[in-house]
Amino acid sequence: MTPHDLPTPALVIDLDQLDFNVDTMATVRPGAALRSHVKAHKCTELARYAAVRSGSDSFCCATVREMVGMAEAGLGVDLLLANETLDVDRLRHLAAVGAATDSRITIAIDSEETLAAVVDAQRDGPLEVLVDVNVGLPRCGIAPERAGALADAARAAGIEVRGVMGYEGHVVGNADRVWRAEQVELSMDQLRRAHRDVGGDVTSAGGTGTYDLHTWAGEVQAGSYLLMDTAYQQLDLPFRQALSVWATVISRNDEAGFVVADAGLKAFGMDHGEPTVVGPHTLFFTSDEHATIVPDPPGSITIGQRVEMWPAHIDPTMALHERVHVVRDGEVVDTWPIDLRNW
Amino acid sequence: MTPHDLPTPALVIDLDQLDFNVDTMATVRPGAALRSHVKAHKCTELARYAAVRSGSDSFCCATVREMVGMAEAGLGVDLLLANETLDVDRLRHLAAVGAATDSRITIAIDSEETLAAVVDAQRDGPLEVLVDVNVGLPRCGIAPERAGALADAARAAGIEVRGVMGYEGHVVGNADRVWRAEQVELSMDQLRRAHRDVGGDVTSAGGTGTYDLHTWAGEVQAGSYLLMDTAYQQLDLPFRQALSVWATVISRNDEAGFVVADAGLKAFGMDHGEPTVVGPHTLFFTSDEHATIVPDPPGSITIGQRVEMWPAHIDPTMALHERVHVVRDGEVVDTWPIDLRNW
Repeated sequence: MTPHDLPTPALVIDLDQLDFNVDTMATVRPGAALRSHVKAHKCTELARYAAVRSGSDSFCCATVREMVGMAEAGLGVDLLLANETLDVDRLRHLAAVGAATDSRITIAIDSEETLAAVVDAQRDGPLEVLVDVNVGLPRCGIAPERAGALADAARAAGIEVRGVMGYEGHVVGNADRVWRAEQVELSMDQLRRAHRDVGGDVTSAGGTGTYDLHTWAGEVQAGSYLLMDTAYQQLDLPFRQALSVWATVISRNDEAGFVVADAGLKAFGMDHGEPTVVGPHTLFFTSDEHATIVPDPPGSITIGQRVEMWPAHIDPTMALHERVHVVRDGEVVDTWPIDLRNW
Repeated sequence: MTPHDLPTPALVIDLDQLDFNVDTMATVRPGAALRSHVKAHKCTELARYAAVRSGSDSFCCATVREMVGMAEAGLGVDLLLANETLDVDRLRHLAAVGAATDSRITIAIDSEETLAAVVDAQRDGPLEVLVDVNVGLPRCGIAPERAGALADAARAAGIEVRGVMGYEGHVVGNADRVWRAEQVELSMDQLRRAHRDVGGDVTSAGGTGTYDLHTWAGEVQAGSYLLMDTAYQQLDLPFRQALSVWATVISRNDEAGFVVADAGLKAFGMDHGEPTVVGPHTLFFTSDEHATIVPDPPGSITIGQRVEMWPAHIDPTMALHERVHVVRDGEVVDTWPIDLRNW
């Protein structure tokens, strides 16, 4: 079977491209120097594939469901919830699953309230914490000067504090590599300051856009490098586009010069903009279940033909699909469930 | 249980607002004058609720999976796939489910190829067709002057042709009601022309933005009126916002003056833009799993507090969630699975 035989819309990974991306990351960030981010794909089979190939088997997640699913899939060597939660019921379930699967579960905290949730939940299984430090992105993370006190409070409550994390999310998407490098240093100055007070052996930071710019942090939290998207393609990164959505042309309007394919804005994460048609053709617009495309040359796409499109943002694109088909040398060799969707 | 007790992100319907919307539509488009569009919500329980309340029990869908799910849920009195497909396997399954559930299944066609798929699939169950006519939106639909020949070809193949549909999707979202009304007339001139050649008793058109502007079409295909969103809220429509996403504030940065809630761009259809925080507060930006919000007045939102947000586009928002909670008078009275997601 080839991608041309799949029911559409179909999410497809090019395995050669994925291999290239895994290997490229592993040369710069081998083993524990990478904490691969599961939120980018929500797929335990993909996480397992990359871990086997690269030897990096520590992961971070953005939701408790991702954490639980990774532990249940036997991928719990070192799992970090790189996000805060106050949901004690979910944390208790995670702690129990972690204990049952012999997983190592670490939770980011940035306040007394998020620490209290972990303290409450650990009655169902061992949980460790990492102090999430704000290093410039207007999102989660405690101020560097208050990180030490939070770590002290955690230790006083009997919780193991593994170290610090700080995500420079305001930096990773900028196309100017020199600026990114300068900003990473500024952010890591903040994280270093916090780490002096917090202690612990984990210093976690970064993303795909800064994966090779970290000189101090011990591990980088990158996920998009695996599959890439057209937003990250704007940067000067060595990673290749490995994910596309295939669609079938279901209608053709020769008078107006367009065709219509059966993948629309419910098949693509749209927050970074419209998808891109692979090849010379131009996307006109997307509707819920349609992409209107202007073929180049005119009339060159027929009804029934497949078209391939790259998403602008892979994370929410993966979250929209039940499964992803895996292709090597033009043949569909596997289909992986996207099993960590929703909450 | 109230929405404040739900695990977040939580999708919530305000039942009083939904009732108002169903009743408002029913006064203008009672019974068969409405063919309620399932793509807007992908939820059989919501479809059933609206049908019981309004008496309108004919539906249209955008995907074969929506059609199959509606038939299996016993909502198959009159189901129209208002979209083209060449997927004979899926059409055969639909035909079989239609026969097994005694449903009436009609498929839109706009080409010889899409007709051929229906002819092929009807060996597994009875299928009827409707000729989809292009009335100005650059998407599916045959040119009006060629609609009659396609209907003739369908009848020659032994397929019942029920009539015509034409969706003025380029008109429904415009804020100028006078312009919308003028454009509906121009589009319906096209559909009337096609109907003269096609025949049949079904003339189907429109959407929420033009639901009360159709003087000729026998039925309107509206879906967004049920739950609404901030995009349709820009128009002069009587329908009310009935759907929101609830999130928990998980982090607070008093130095910078923002809080972070746990619903991000994976919880909202983002193609029409960012969600809107209900109340005086301002959304700063969304990330995958976060909304950074500036409270008004400053400091007025605490960690653990719930915030409510309206999506900019309901159709893809519903498609991102597994379930929607139903609230009356501040109490969660039911939870409906969003069971028609994916393809």
